[in-house]
Amino acid sequence: MTVAEQLRLEQAAYVAAVAGKLTDFLTTRQSVMSAISPDIDPLMGSISNLVTGGKRLRALMCYWGWRGAGGEAGADEVVTAGSALELFQAAALIHDDIIDRSDTRRGGPSVHRRFSELHGTQGWALDSERFGHAAAILTGDLCLSFSEEAFTEIGQSAAAGSRSRLIFNLMRAEVMAGQYLDILEEVAGPRRDRAGAVSRAQSIIRFKSAKYSTEHPLALGGALAGARDELLRGYSAFALPLGEAFQLRDDVLGVFGDPVTTGKPAGDDLREGKRTVLIAFALDLAGPAESAFIDAKLGSPGLGDADVDEIRRIIADCGALKATEVLIEDFGRAAFSALDLLPLDELPKTALRRLAEATVSRAA
Amino acid sequence: MTVAEQLRLEQAAYVAAVAGKLTDFLTTRQSVMSAISPDIDPLMGSISNLVTGGKRLRALMCYWGWRGAGGEAGADEVVTAGSALELFQAAALIHDDIIDRSDTRRGGPSVHRRFSELHGTQGWALDSERFGHAAAILTGDLCLSFSEEAFTEIGQSAAAGSRSRLIFNLMRAEVMAGQYLDILEEVAGPRRDRAGAVSRAQSIIRFKSAKYSTEHPLALGGALAGARDELLRGYSAFALPLGEAFQLRDDVLGVFGDPVTTGKPAGDDLREGKRTVLIAFALDLAGPAESAFIDAKLGSPGLGDADVDEIRRIIADCGALKATEVLIEDFGRAAFSALDLLPLDELPKTALRRLAEATVSRAA
Repeated sequence: MTVAEQLRLEQAAYVAAVAGKLTDFLTTRQSVMSAISPDIDPLMGSISNLVTGGKRLRALMCYWGWRGAGGEAGADEVVTAGSALELFQAAALIHDDIIDRSDTRRGGPSVHRRFSELHGTQGWALDSERFGHAAAILTGDLCLSFSEEAFTEIGQSAAAGSRSRLIFNLMRAEVMAGQYLDILEEVAGPRRDRAGAVSRAQSIIRFKSAKYSTEHPLALGGALAGARDELLRGYSAFALPLGEAFQLRDDVLGVFGDPVTTGKPAGDDLREGKRTVLIAFALDLAGPAESAFIDAKLGSPGLGDADVDEIRRIIADCGALKATEVLIEDFGRAAFSALDLLPLDELPKTALRRLAEATVSRAA
Repeated sequence: MTVAEQLRLEQAAYVAAVAGKLTDFLTTRQSVMSAISPDIDPLMGSISNLVTGGKRLRALMCYWGWRGAGGEAGADEVVTAGSALELFQAAALIHDDIIDRSDTRRGGPSVHRRFSELHGTQGWALDSERFGHAAAILTGDLCLSFSEEAFTEIGQSAAAGSRSRLIFNLMRAEVMAGQYLDILEEVAGPRRDRAGAVSRAQSIIRFKSAKYSTEHPLALGGALAGARDELLRGYSAFALPLGEAFQLRDDVLGVFGDPVTTGKPAGDDLREGKRTVLIAFALDLAGPAESAFIDAKLGSPGLGDADVDEIRRIIADCGALKATEVLIEDFGRAAFSALDLLPLDELPKTALRRLAEATVSRAA
């Protein structure tokens, strides 16, 4: 069997094991919740639906971090850890979509929209949108608790004080802090020093996305397998720039992506008012009138297609798109160089290279 | 030393130890968060502020459950468990206040209001209210994660699969389910079978409040101290009706309470549209015109003082207030009878009696 075949089989087995674990986990919770009331079913359904899809990027980073540090193929611990990461990701998405007022997620309605629609179709009293938000806050809380329950089920190697637990705790705190910095920049950014905008946007990316999507999951897998500090440092040198490239690509797709491929309406990031690195570059590089245009339009819920097109044109013409693509390349190069230096067997190294390639070149 | 003196000293020492533990816990997290950015300070400040106040009901139930089961006075484990419960309560309050659109908490602004006000005073861009809600969602998520971190620090006796862990997990899931049933009843209640409204409202109370405020914390303390199943059953027989009386009292205070004492504006529950047992009784017992009046007014954000007074009059005149007071007495009696049967030493038994008395007769 070639390395490529072994990789494909082992990765497919792991993804299937995580899916199975998530199904088992949610089935046992479903019976507890149904005993309270069948009215709870839509919360559980929303969680199941979210953890069924997705690219499993975090679980896979965790798996290959584990394998790279000598962990056994398909072991229970790393399947459970991957499930906990996927549940955490689902919880973060549910609340993130409320915060960003995103009505779509993976081509379907987001959780708060699902509940607003349920309210509408049932002809319930009071306000649909408010009910949707409230129900989604609670669904996210439940999912966040579930992710923790799943993480605890890893057992002794994730007990209090263990390196794995510290990584999981730090990951959660950092992503929440990063999300706050993100919404803060949306409102405070226009009043803050424009010269610092790119570096603020890069810091936000690091905390809300890069550490959480790639660096911490990889380190978590390594720590669970008992990796030495030196290997974990090497993992970070690879995964942090990879995560930064990943989020920069996400920001480019948020403005220029094809809605059919991304599953999100074109220009959604602009309507949300996200002050990404791409936008920070544009505000810096475009002329005063064009910068003022972007500043005025950013965060307008009613932003039309013509405005979106005009902002795209400015971003491309002023060189902001190019500057961001250069950054993505730089981060990508840094990640691949660090990967080359990692003392890993061929299988995990190939797997991480494939994951990294898919991450920096993705279109959705 | 009399039992009363010993009780006072031991309880004061425990409350101080929990406060000290919470301060230490948040101080270590503060340094992690400040390293990310000083902009995170308002999130940490909101959490500190919330866990500084309060009646510590849940921590105290946990403590006396522990002591009643033979746990050592002032032991680390039960101090840590109490801190985890207080952090969980703070997280629940932050999200609950967003969901209920409550602008005040303990006489001051609620967390989402604090962030909206920060937005206003700083003259930031876009919408104050939306920023407030988003920031409070993230603050609650952070606090929920902290409660879990604190719980894990209990160590081996709260490890995966332990009875304590199962109680903590069930508590979280039930309170989230109960809160969902609560908001569901606000919107779906008017369309549902009126005859079942009182029993639905009682079920909501049980899950969103009684189990979480008294039954589970007491059981958690007992389980940590290794209580046998029989004792835990006895604890439930006492604490569940006590918690039901506690929440029914809360519902009465939500309509009839003195704002100076409760720290919440008069009629807040009516404006929020809460379909409590008190309201369910009123809709059942009042005449058709008066029921229709309550139905029409419930959940109106602009509900004025005259409407609040009229709803109060209807609730009192139709016998709904009396019916609720009778229920509170019944639950209180059931709780005290069950307490008498508990095989506890004089100190924990006296402590639980005092807590129970304060709980059912409280004015705030």
